Formats: sequence, C-alpha cells, structure tokens
Amino acid sequence: MNDLHIPFEQISVTLKEILVKYGLAEERALRCALLFAKADLDGVHSHGVNRFFLFLDFIKKGLVNPTKEPVCLSQLGMFERWDGQQGVGNLNADFAMDRAIRLSKEFGISCVTLQNTNHWMRGGNFGWQAVEAGCIGICFTNTNPNMPAWGGREPKIGNNPLVIAIPREKGPVVLDMAFSQFAYGKLSIAKAKGEQMSYDAGFDDEGNLTKDPQKILENHLGLPIGLWKGSGLSIMLDLLSAILSGGNSSHEIGKLGYETAISQVFMCFDPNKLQLLEWIESKSDALIEDLRNSATFDEKPIRYPGENTLVTRNKNIENGVPISEELWAKLQNELKS
Amino acid sequence: MNDLHIPFEQISVTLKEILVKYGLAEERALRCALLFAKADLDGVHSHGVNRFFLFLDFIKKGLVNPTKEPVCLSQLGMFERWDGQQGVGNLNADFAMDRAIRLSKEFGISCVTLQNTNHWMRGGNFGWQAVEAGCIGICFTNTNPNMPAWGGREPKIGNNPLVIAIPREKGPVVLDMAFSQFAYGKLSIAKAKGEQMSYDAGFDDEGNLTKDPQKILENHLGLPIGLWKGSGLSIMLDLLSAILSGGNSSHEIGKLGYETAISQVFMCFDPNKLQLLEWIESKSDALIEDLRNSATFDEKPIRYPGENTLVTRNKNIENGVPISEELWAKLQNELKS
Repeated sequence: MNDLHIPFEQISVTLKEILVKYGLAEERALRCALLFAKADLDGVHSHGVNRFFLFLDFIKKGLVNPTKEPVCLSQLGMFERWDGQQGVGNLNADFAMDRAIRLSKEFGISCVTLQNTNHWMRGGNFGWQAVEAGCIGICFTNTNPNMPAWGGREPKIGNNPLVIAIPREKGPVVLDMAFSQFAYGKLSIAKAKGEQMSYDAGFDDEGNLTKDPQKILENHLGLPIGLWKGSGLSIMLDLLSAILSGGNSSHEIGKLGYETAISQVFMCFDPNKLQLLEWIESKSDALIEDLRNSATFDEKPIRYPGENTLVTRNKNIENGVPISEELWAKLQNELKS
Repeated sequence: MNDLHIPFEQISVTLKEILVKYGLAEERALRCALLFAKADLDGVHSHGVNRFFLFLDFIKKGLVNPTKEPVCLSQLGMFERWDGQQGVGNLNADFAMDRAIRLSKEFGISCVTLQNTNHWMRGGNFGWQAVEAGCIGICFTNTNPNMPAWGGREPKIGNNPLVIAIPREKGPVVLDMAFSQFAYGKLSIAKAKGEQMSYDAGFDDEGNLTKDPQKILENHLGLPIGLWKGSGLSIMLDLLSAILSGGNSSHEIGKLGYETAISQVFMCFDPNKLQLLEWIESKSDALIEDLRNSATFDEKPIRYPGENTLVTRNKNIENGVPISEELWAKLQNELKS
C-alpha cells in the first residue's frame, strides 16, 4: 500500500480529536497528539502514529490513565521526584523535561525523575525539547525485560532507551538509542520478509550469536549492544532509573504483565548558567567538521547523531508527513466510531 | 615467567619511592602509588603497575608534570571546572572526584570537570572512591582518536571510558568500561599468540567486521560497541567532556601526537541528601537477586558489574598481589638507578 503525505497539522488535529474521545482534556489531547505526530514529522515512524492504536489500547485496558497528571513526591533544589500516576507517558515525559529545563535555568544542573509512568514513545522528542530551550538534555527510561543479561537465556534486562542532546545553532546533536542492537520491530519485519539481519542481532537456542530474526524472536533473546558491555550499561541505567525515582526496576515491571509503571530520569545542563556558551557551538562544530573529513569505506561522509532529523523534518513540512493509507483510514474510522 | 605475590603495601611503597625520584612530593607520590597499586589489588592489571613505566616515560617526555595541581577555573554552586595543568592524571581525577563528593553532600548532585589533564589509568578507582563515600558516582573521559566512527576507515573517535558506580552494603555495583569492544592491549596479546578474537573486534581493509587482531591493529580500526550505536555514544561523551570542561575533544587531542591534555567529567549523587536511602540498597539487592535467578547457557550464575572486584581484592590482600617477576625486577632496578 502506498504512503499518503498528510500535513503535520492535519495529523495532529486528527489524533487530538480521537484522544479527546478517549478522555484527555482538550489541551492535553493536543499536546499528546503533537508529540505523536512530531515523531513522524522527524522520520521516527516506529515511535509515532504507528504506535497510536497500541497506546489507545493501553487506555482501554486501564494501563494508561488519560486524566492523571504527575504528582510531586519531593523537591530538593535542583532535584525533584514525581509520581506519573500511570498517566499518559509522552505527556508525563514532556512535563518532566520541562521541569528539568526550568530547574537548570535556576541552578545550572537539574535532575527530575518519574516513577509509575508509561512509555514515552519517541524519546528523541525530549532531547529536542531540551535543546530548543538552549539546554543540554540527558534522559533515559527503563522498560520491561526484553533482552538476556550477558550469559543468560531468558529476558532479564531492558533495552532502556537513552537520549543525549546538545544544542547547536547549525543543528543540534541528538542521540536517541536503545541498548538492543536492533529493535524488535525491525526483527519482526525481517522475519516476515524471510530475511536475515545485517549484523548479529541476538542468540539462538544454544546461546550462539545469530542473524536469524525468527530464532531471536521465539525466545526474546535480542542482543545487547557490545555483548557484555551493553548488558552492564543496561543494568546500570535501570538501577539509576529505579533508585533516583524510587520506582520500579525492569524486573519489577516484568511482573506486571504489561509494560507500565516504568521509571525515567531527565537531566538538564544550562550552558548559559554554567558559563559554557563559549564552547557550546565551537566544540560541536569542530568535532562535526573533523568527522566529515574522515575517510570512509563507501565514500559517503560520516553523519553525526541527529544529523538527518532537520532534513527529514523540513522535507515533511514541505511535502506532508508520510503515513500509510491503511493507518490513515484506520484513524478516520476511529474518529467516526 | 611466573607471577610473584607481593603485599599491596610493599608495591605501593616501592612505587611511591620511585615517584619521589621523579619529582612528586611525598604525600602526592604515596597517593599516586596507591592508585596504581589498587588497580592490581582489584585485578585490573591492564591499568595498574603494567602502565607504570609508560607513565614515568610521560613524565620524562614532559607530557605529565609531576608537580602541577588542578587550578580552579570556575565555581558555580554544584558545578566546578578545573584546569588539570597536565599534571598527574590519577591524582587529578582523585582530586576531582573528591570535589564532586563534597559538593554532592552539600547540594545533592554535583559535577566537576577537568580540562588539560592526563590519563586516569584505572577509571574504576574513582567509582569506588564515590561509593566508599556513600555516593552514586558517574565519570567519563575522552581519549585520543582510536576507533573509526561508523562508516569511517580511519580512527576519529575515542573509546572514552565510562564509570558508573552505585553504593551497596553487600558490595557496590561498579561498571568500568570503554566503548571499544576490546582493548587494544587484548588485541595485541591475541596477535602475539597468533589467535583470533572470540567476537568481532574491528574492521579489515574493506570495512568488513573481523576477529583478526593483526588486520585491526594495522589500521587502528577497533570496533565501537554496538557498531553505529557505540560510535554515537562515544561522540556524545566526547562532546560532553569537551563542552563541560572547556577542554580538548578527541580530535584536538589527536593532533598533539601523544594522549595528553584530555577532558574529564565527574558527577556525584548523594543518596542521603537526595532522600533516596530507602531505595539505594533495596533496588540493587532485588535486581541482583533477579539476575542470579536467570537461566543461563552455561549454568553459571549471571554476575553484576563489579561483582568480582571484592573477591579478587580480598584474595590479593590475603595472598599478595600478583605481579610478574620481570616487572618487579624492573621496579627494583628503577629504585636503585
């Protein structure tokens, strides 16, 4: 089926109207819709409108409460802990990063944590939120257990997405990555096509590395990046998420049956307050220039994290955001139902 | 050649006396010696006494100044920037983590950065320093360019070691890792033995993944963990190091000819000040318990980051620290020279 190209505003308004029907107040529905649509606008279709019906299903199941907003658990200067009350994940994350931005403007560095929240969908949104406010942003989340720890043959650790974002006039540097080598979504697509992955992507029944998505998906044995190293990093980010928020760690989330009541950390550094303006542009510009001068195997220049986002965004603003005919029809039906 | 087993104190005093001859003041010489010896005590021989003569060589070359101490560049509450003045790397790092600990006790969270410093040798030391003071510690450093960025065929990014340490009564959780899949030291050892690496470790002349240490070492094409993902993470840590310290990023270090004048970041979270004591033990204990219950491919239980350190340390305290006859003889000669 072909992709349609729909204006960003039209997608946002469509999602918003559906969300209002699902119990979100007008303003919250619009903000939530914009966050979904922004993922597609920036080319991250895996965590945009493609996830919307899964999200609605979580509302139906009572796992996401559309009316709950974060409640403050403790405020200690630049550090705040909030209870997400199992509310809307992307709205909670947007709220927490906004708090982190404000606190960093006051204190220089800030840390805001959420316990008991839901999937933030596209994590990169919150990195962009920080850089658009002129801040360096770092945020991470835990997830349900979806990879084996190093040596393990059952999923015990999360792929725990991490976002690091650095403001830059010529285009911010934004890394948005999970600690699995490949997303399960990509494994599923390859399996459906009968294809192997391009690199080792998980473990087979004997614990050997394999590129075969079917074997990996059967046992949920996706590969942590860097083998034992990503396994260790995933464990540390999970522990930090749980301790700094007082919320669930991955194994506790795993007992809930659904990925809900997760824990997240949002940090900001305000370069202005920290007197770092002298370097915020120059260091990034020089590093990117050096990367571009690198010899490469395919003669294509090396890209920095997030480099394609603005290009994609501008293209989609001009031509409309690509969305499958099927999904757009499904949204129209949901709107009428 | 066999390993000797020398008491920790005897190694430390030997190193200290040599360092005094190289121009370090008594107290600083002892502290520096203890940091070297502690790496071996904890089983991290790659970054302990085995590096000592390389370090002395850096003093001889004028790349490490044995008498310089960090000078404060800015103090803004919980954030401080220091100029390491190309002094002794492990002493500078020890100083910076100590500052970070003190500031976190006052403010809850702290960040201390160093520009113009030298290799910290074993990064894990500074994680242990934080947890021994009851703090969560996070520190990272940039390095000279020693890996290709994703797609590149020349070294452009650093392996930028990262340490994350969480205090725990039954044994802290301490991750100490670089972003290369294997250390160049390990590749050299395998090459000397004519062995292949156990997993993909770098790139060959055509840009394909290979386990062959010789091909990798020829071109300095070691593998970033997680392929494009570790490449991105390395770039972000380098940028953060350079911006937060105002110091060199990897490509600037690469122009110096030697790995010197590097940039480092030290952060602490004080669980007491942040009112997180309720979770600091319980979250780690429960996560570790869950990991231990994981089914494994080799029936051996899964280990958490840093689990072996205390076992190794206690064994070496009892039996003496293993050190090669050759290296010990070389130290004695240096002492007499």
